[in-house]
Amino acid sequence: MDELRARLAEVAALERTSALLAWDQEVCMPRQGSPGRAELRATIGRLAHERFVDDRIGELLDGAQPRDELEADLVRIARRDYDKARRVPADLVAEMTRVAAAAHTAWIQAHADSDFGAFAPHLERNVELRRRYSACFPEADHPYDPLLDDFEPGMTTADVRATFERLRDGLVALVARAPRVDGSLVHAAFPEDGQRRLTATVLRAVGAREEDGWRLDIAVHPFATALAPGDVRLTTRYEDTGIDSLFSSLHEFGHGLYEAQVDPALARTPLAGGASSAWHESQSRLWENMVGRSAGFWRWCHPHLQDALPDAFAGARWEDVHRAVNAVRPSLIRVSADEVTYGLHIVLRFELELALLEEEIEVADLPAAWNERMRDYLDVEVPDDAHGVLQDVHWAEGLFGYFPTYALGNVIGGQLWARVNADLPDVDERLAAGDFAALRAWLAENVHRHGRRLLPAELLECTVGGPLDPAALLTYLGDKLDASAALMP
Amino acid sequence: MDELRARLAEVAALERTSALLAWDQEVCMPRQGSPGRAELRATIGRLAHERFVDDRIGELLDGAQPRDELEADLVRIARRDYDKARRVPADLVAEMTRVAAAAHTAWIQAHADSDFGAFAPHLERNVELRRRYSACFPEADHPYDPLLDDFEPGMTTADVRATFERLRDGLVALVARAPRVDGSLVHAAFPEDGQRRLTATVLRAVGAREEDGWRLDIAVHPFATALAPGDVRLTTRYEDTGIDSLFSSLHEFGHGLYEAQVDPALARTPLAGGASSAWHESQSRLWENMVGRSAGFWRWCHPHLQDALPDAFAGARWEDVHRAVNAVRPSLIRVSADEVTYGLHIVLRFELELALLEEEIEVADLPAAWNERMRDYLDVEVPDDAHGVLQDVHWAEGLFGYFPTYALGNVIGGQLWARVNADLPDVDERLAAGDFAALRAWLAENVHRHGRRLLPAELLECTVGGPLDPAALLTYLGDKLDASAALMP
Repeated sequence: MDELRARLAEVAALERTSALLAWDQEVCMPRQGSPGRAELRATIGRLAHERFVDDRIGELLDGAQPRDELEADLVRIARRDYDKARRVPADLVAEMTRVAAAAHTAWIQAHADSDFGAFAPHLERNVELRRRYSACFPEADHPYDPLLDDFEPGMTTADVRATFERLRDGLVALVARAPRVDGSLVHAAFPEDGQRRLTATVLRAVGAREEDGWRLDIAVHPFATALAPGDVRLTTRYEDTGIDSLFSSLHEFGHGLYEAQVDPALARTPLAGGASSAWHESQSRLWENMVGRSAGFWRWCHPHLQDALPDAFAGARWEDVHRAVNAVRPSLIRVSADEVTYGLHIVLRFELELALLEEEIEVADLPAAWNERMRDYLDVEVPDDAHGVLQDVHWAEGLFGYFPTYALGNVIGGQLWARVNADLPDVDERLAAGDFAALRAWLAENVHRHGRRLLPAELLECTVGGPLDPAALLTYLGDKLDASAALMP
Repeated sequence: MDELRARLAEVAALERTSALLAWDQEVCMPRQGSPGRAELRATIGRLAHERFVDDRIGELLDGAQPRDELEADLVRIARRDYDKARRVPADLVAEMTRVAAAAHTAWIQAHADSDFGAFAPHLERNVELRRRYSACFPEADHPYDPLLDDFEPGMTTADVRATFERLRDGLVALVARAPRVDGSLVHAAFPEDGQRRLTATVLRAVGAREEDGWRLDIAVHPFATALAPGDVRLTTRYEDTGIDSLFSSLHEFGHGLYEAQVDPALARTPLAGGASSAWHESQSRLWENMVGRSAGFWRWCHPHLQDALPDAFAGARWEDVHRAVNAVRPSLIRVSADEVTYGLHIVLRFELELALLEEEIEVADLPAAWNERMRDYLDVEVPDDAHGVLQDVHWAEGLFGYFPTYALGNVIGGQLWARVNADLPDVDERLAAGDFAALRAWLAENVHRHGRRLLPAELLECTVGGPLDPAALLTYLGDKLDASAALMP
């Protein structure tokens, strides 16, 4: 066990080092450092993989005699990761990386030109390589299963399909009955300095305090990284209009808090992190939406908003802001979608990924299939592919199986929030009082401390006592719409 | 050759990654991240060592067939590094690291308490381990040789002793005849904002431009790191009094420029760096002193100084500033010593390191020996050990053989500066015109581009056509004193 733990700690250290190389690249590195940085990241990434799939780790796993429950979980999860990593030939991994890099470059130009034809051959290569990847796992029920499993260990395509059918139907119905709320109050031009002060005040209040080892920096695409329990780094960006920097910061805070509150006993093991992508997203969305768009939060935040951006909000009531940040409006772009329509953008992508993997549609037919679903689910006409099928970078990077985790995170978040409200019935009053400690503690106890000890479905069973179920999210969103409609003039 | 180059590139990438871990620790990392960071640095450092001393690298070096001169140098230098690294048992390296870490902790307290007795046992352990390290190289003429060779490949204790005897006698004579100049003009209290603007203006002018991939950050102990040719990072600090931030920035710029101007063909090899510690120091001292304390530099810099710090310098002439920054005054502390007395602080440390290694004195006798030399060389009385033998961290960290490189850097810098003046007779006029490009180009062509292809003595032969010789430095310093004395009121 000691040698196994030492070897796994080495791999974990290489992965944290990779995370620093990535953080630094986005936050500090001069542009001219790119080629050198690519070399460093490739080297550390390759070493982490090589040291993990080493024969010796297999022998140690075979002979491991765990001395406590933590070590039993460590062996169980490491065994699962190891067996999966060993199944994929190194040259296939290298080709996936190479083709994705070329596709990424091609996508940047195709997106700028709104020219799907220029991107299509790269996408075809990416899809073909994912089929070859899936073929390394012939026992899978569906070719999409091994891709999904990389992000949601143990989850099947059938699970997601069943969940998303109910989610889609529920969301389409909610969009149809959503009142037409004017959200322009929070989408005006705001001075950057005021946005900065607002974000700083809110992050400090929720628990991201510099003296406790948190940082906030600027990045083009905001993200969070935990390099150690006492070294948690968030990034945001300040746009000319809107207060997205606030929601994006709360979102990244959710990711960071998850990592920061993992049981310290898991440090230096592969269990020191979130249970899955969807579980991570459940935490970021919970802080961004369930907290950040709640009535209680805005009762507390309103004076800080007025203080930071007095010109825009001096005459507004907290109720006005709360309504504006919850406005539902079908739109073209996923990343700026509201809380209700967001899930439909994801369901659409999941359905198209499945169709490609199942060879039910060809890459060439993707734009038409995209546009048709946008019409069906959101009643939105797509003017060009840059605002449609080309808007996201994920498929260029070869990320198939990742999109669903965004909406699964919302579904889990809905289930958790129902449980939070049962355990802490006064949670909205606490938020209104600026007391975020009880919620942080609830999340630490029920979710965060477990790290990656449990598979996603096991953690859900342990936390909410049941399987994946979109009902709680749909109820939560429906209640919000009802409250909003009841207040309509 | 291809496999050898790939393996050496991997080691080089691990070392650059170590440099980023260190930079981030000093510049960005929250204090609470320390334990996690120590783990990452230990892992990457251990991997770099393990991958380098791997048997396979020895086989590849044995069978290497260089295809050009660069590859011939690569094999020659890598062979030398490899053979030396293989001679030291891994458990001795580990013990040196462990004992140094404990000694470092003990030194912090002993320094604060000015209590040499509390530090002495740790220093004894460090000295004993360095003797064991030296014993791994029984062919060495002197037990200090293998320690020195880690920083100055190929240099011997006899070389340094001969050079330092001449340097010491020359410097003692210079100190004795140095005019008493009042340096208080540049040691007053200056606003931090003005110091920042001055440093930014000067760094930009000498060639550290953000758009070319340079950064400047704050660190408690200033240093420079090059993570790639287009990613060069300097640090400085702003004190309440004085303009040391300017000189420290020029010093770090000298280090950074060296790395930035190495031949790009050496990238991803162990040759992409400076030839030795002394060579690196020659570059930093050349920019800090030969440039930064020259008449030409101050003729150019004076209006920028007045602009940045108008309250202090509005009424001063450039000649006043030039004289003040060149004031010679024997003092207790090495890091704040002037350009002339600095070398005597180093000679003293070298002599004591030799005496310890030769077992001519005991650790317990070190304070008395220190204080006696301070009296002999600088006519200074040491009031307590915190201002004497305990002032530097180096011995706590087990760094023996490193101190001499500071003064050797000055000696090499003196030899280079004489050569610069021969090749660019109008260099002072160029500095006065704010033209630093010709000097940068001279250094690139004659020093920087070679990277680590040549051993230190070979590079000196190639650049100045002779061996190490303190005469040029002593002449340069003597000329400055004469000019200063001639202007005395």
